This record gives sequence, structure tokens and C-alpha cells, in this order.
Amino acid sequence: MRLGDVTPASEVLVVWKHVGVLEVTDPNDPRLDEYRFLRTADRRPDRPGGLGLVIAEGVIAVGRMLASHYPVRSMLGVRRKLETLPIDDLDAPVYVTTAEIMAEVIGFHLNRGVLAMAGRPEPPAAIDIVDGARRLVVLEGVGDHENLGALFRNAAAFGVDGVLLGTGCADPLYRRSVRVSMGHVLSVPFTTLTPWPDGLKLLQDNGFTVMALTPSGVVELSSVAMPDKAAVLLGSEGPGLTPEAVAASDVAVRIPMSGGVDSLNVATAGAVAFYALGAGR
Amino acid sequence: MRLGDVTPASEVLVVWKHVGVLEVTDPNDPRLDEYRFLRTADRRPDRPGGLGLVIAEGVIAVGRMLASHYPVRSMLGVRRKLETLPIDDLDAPVYVTTAEIMAEVIGFHLNRGVLAMAGRPEPPAAIDIVDGARRLVVLEGVGDHENLGALFRNAAAFGVDGVLLGTGCADPLYRRSVRVSMGHVLSVPFTTLTPWPDGLKLLQDNGFTVMALTPSGVVELSSVAMPDKAAVLLGSEGPGLTPEAVAASDVAVRIPMSGGVDSLNVATAGAVAFYALGAGR
Repeated sequence: MRLGDVTPASEVLVVWKHVGVLEVTDPNDPRLDEYRFLRTADRRPDRPGGLGLVIAEGVIAVGRMLASHYPVRSMLGVRRKLETLPIDDLDAPVYVTTAEIMAEVIGFHLNRGVLAMAGRPEPPAAIDIVDGARRLVVLEGVGDHENLGALFRNAAAFGVDGVLLGTGCADPLYRRSVRVSMGHVLSVPFTTLTPWPDGLKLLQDNGFTVMALTPSGVVELSSVAMPDKAAVLLGSEGPGLTPEAVAASDVAVRIPMSGGVDSLNVATAGAVAFYALGAGR
Repeated sequence: MRLGDVTPASEVLVVWKHVGVLEVTDPNDPRLDEYRFLRTADRRPDRPGGLGLVIAEGVIAVGRMLASHYPVRSMLGVRRKLETLPIDDLDAPVYVTTAEIMAEVIGFHLNRGVLAMAGRPEPPAAIDIVDGARRLVVLEGVGDHENLGALFRNAAAFGVDGVLLGTGCADPLYRRSVRVSMGHVLSVPFTTLTPWPDGLKLLQDNGFTVMALTPSGVVELSSVAMPDKAAVLLGSEGPGLTPEAVAASDVAVRIPMSGGVDSLNVATAGAVAFYALGAGR
């Protein structure tokens, strides 16, 4: 049930009682302790070596988390935002509070007004992502959380079936990656690919053509005959792909670019390649 | 002449004397006053209602500024960065200092190590951009400086000839736009298009097909017969294009996307459209 804007407050409370909605009036409430250090590098709850939780911010990303297989542990938000989310069947506490108390707890004003915390599931085996897929993206050395998040967003937009992380990639479940991805790191399956780059053989053994996207590619993207199963291999925009990764690919492809410009942002290059591959069709 | 790393310091000073290189040792030096309020909203030198200057940061963007028609007024940087830039023929003072003094002057540590300031030239008339162009981008309501900068970067990468700004767009010459564009706001010509959206008629009168890019477009991008002269019309990713702007266009085009995903970042959508238009070829 979606709670409409016209529902009287008292009725909203009755509905919410069924799903464990708890009002918080004290910023020191210990039930919110997991939300306290969102911006503290060594204590942030999404640090893999720490609590290793996954944080979604805002109605769109939280909605994707609720629809995903990520086990939601709790939510925190203002009434206006929580009302727009399908929380009726959620088996986890939902803390409703004011924007002011929320800011005191998390340490800054969150304009998006709602947060959800989930546990970090075991990553799937690479073969489980490869099996049944037709379009994949493989990343090497993408260490920037925003670029990584943007890549997942673009992968989702073009119907890419999964993301495989080679060496040197950032954590897609870092809060900023989740945010920039619009929650799509929770909808597009991913895992690490090891050993690197020899693990690419797993894709090739399963019928994939591995296309390394690099400014020095010998083939233009628009002239590639699109294979039934294609994996796009992307590196970070500074150093680019290692020669070893390019050598382990089946073909090196370039996006035709104007003179004097030699690089696109990695997420943008990915979007262009996914479009050219017709991944969404 | 490019100054090599092995040039002895004394010789470098001799070379630089020819081009007006001035060493700064006092952070209160009044010659650097224009650099003092880079992050102060109401005093920043790039504010159109204020000094209205244009600031380039880092070797790549400063290099593009030096190669552009923007009248450079001065530069400030550390020796290591200045040495990599073609400043010998520059008719403006170049202030060389330490990273510490530079941080004191501008108010934060600038990792990129070099800044250039230019005056803001009169924008060209729209007809001067339309005339002779084959690929244009027209923007409506793109108010986010980073998206705007990224759009210029992508426009440059795909050889777009110019950018026309409809109503509600941010200032492409804001410092953050310049940075995100990698300096390409200084290489891709732009101006405002008025009245809006009737000004689109100027493009149509000059042989352009105006293609509105919108998720509700009736034609798929990949099935558009590419016209000789094409202008891509893009709106901001939240509200999208106004019905008036779409109505004033010749065709409404959509990028085919996967189910459940309804939008791309505006700069990414632009990149995909520019690629499809083969603008760089």
C-alpha cells in the first residue's frame, strides 16, 4: 500500500504500527548508533573492514534496496519520505524522526531525508554472473567511487547483465557509489574476477567476446560486428587498461573521437559502448 | 619552448624573466588579490555579477585556456606545474610560488597546482555559431554546473561544433564547470539562444533538424536517419524538456533503455546521442 498525502496523521500511525515504525525523539537513542559515523573515515558503517554495511540514501536508492536481495536491517527517515516507500512488509525497524534530529545523529543535513542500512551479502561466484548473461562489463583499476557508481547506473540503463571487477577497483557498496549509481549497485549483480587478467578466460570459455575499450584500439566501435555475447572491458581514464588486460581480450576497440581529445570519463565511455552493443534491446 | 625538468633553476629564472614570471613570497601580496575568494559565494572572481572572470585550474584546463581566445590576465602556480605550460609568449604576469603560499592565498590546497585567470569575452551571436556548423547541442534547464561541464567535455570529444543555451541553464564559465569540462568550455563555442524556445527556428531556418532527446520520444535514436545538420536538444534529468521545447523541435527521439530505468545523466545522454550522430567523424 502506498500511503497517500491526504491520509490523516493518526491513521498513518495506525498503519505504520503494523510494520514496526518507531518514533525517535532523542538524538542519542542507542538504536541509531549504526547511523552515527557516516562521514568518519575509520568508523563509517559501510567500511568493508568495519561493520561492512550497505547504506542507501534517498527515496530512489532506498526503494531499489527494498526491491533487492540485500537484507535491510533498519531505516531512518522523516515522515514525508518514508510515506512514499513500500515499507509495509519490511521485517526490520523503521525509525521516523525530524530532519533536525536526523542531522544530529548522522552529523550533517541529509537533504534526501531517508536512509536504509543493509547487511552485505556474500558476493556471487563469477560463473553465476557469466552463466545466462549476454552483456557484461569488466572493470580494471576503476578506483573512483563516483565513476564506479555512474558505471553501474549506465549498466542498468542499457540492460547489462552483470559487472566483474578486476584488480584495483573501488568498493561498489561504498555510500557514495550507491548514491551516484541511483541504487543500481544493488540491482546489477557484481563480483570480483580473479586471477587477473587470466580470469577473463572464464568469459571466453563461456562464449563471450571480450572487447577492450581503449583509445588505441585498432577497431572502431561502430564497425564491430556485435557478438551474441559481449563483455566490455574498461579501465580508468588516467592510466587506462594495462597491456596485459588488453592482450587477454579478443579485440581492442576505440570510440571515434574528435582531434585533440583523447579520453572520455570511464562511465561515459561505458554508456556509449553499451548503447552500441544494443544491450537494452 | 618547453622547459625541461633538467634545466638548472638559475637558467629557468633567466628564461622566465622574458615572459614576466614573478616570484611571490608574501601571501598578502596585493598582486594576487583576484585569487583570494575562490570559494566565497558572493566574492568569487568568476561570479558574472562580480568580476566575471574565468578561472582555469590544472595543467590541462590552463593549457586549453592558453590555446583559446580567452584573454589571460594572469597565472599563479608552483614551478613544477608552470614548467609544463607554454607560457613563453604570454603577455600577462605569471606568479610562481610555493604550494603553501598558494593555499594561503586561495584559501585551500589546490592539488592541481596552477591557476589562470582570464577576462570574459562578449558571447558570440547565435548565428555565428550556427553558421558553418553541422552538429550542435541545445540545452534547456541544465542548471547543474557539473553536468554542464561534463556536457561540454563530451561535446568536444565527439566534435560538436557549438552549444546553445536555452532558458534555465547555469553559467558554463563557473569555476566548477570549467574544471569538470577539462577546459572544454573554453574550446567549444557557446552562447544563449533567445527567445526560448522560438529561437530554435534560427537553427531550422539554417537547415538543422532539431532532435529533442526525451524518454517519451517516439523514435528510437538508433533508427533515426542522420541528417546532414543536426542539433540535439537536451533537458535536465529531473523535469526533462518542457512540452513547448519538444513541440518546437522537429522530432522527439529516445535512447532505448532497459525496463525500470527511465533516465540517464544529461551529459551521458548527450554523449550517446553525439556518438550516434557520428559527430566526430
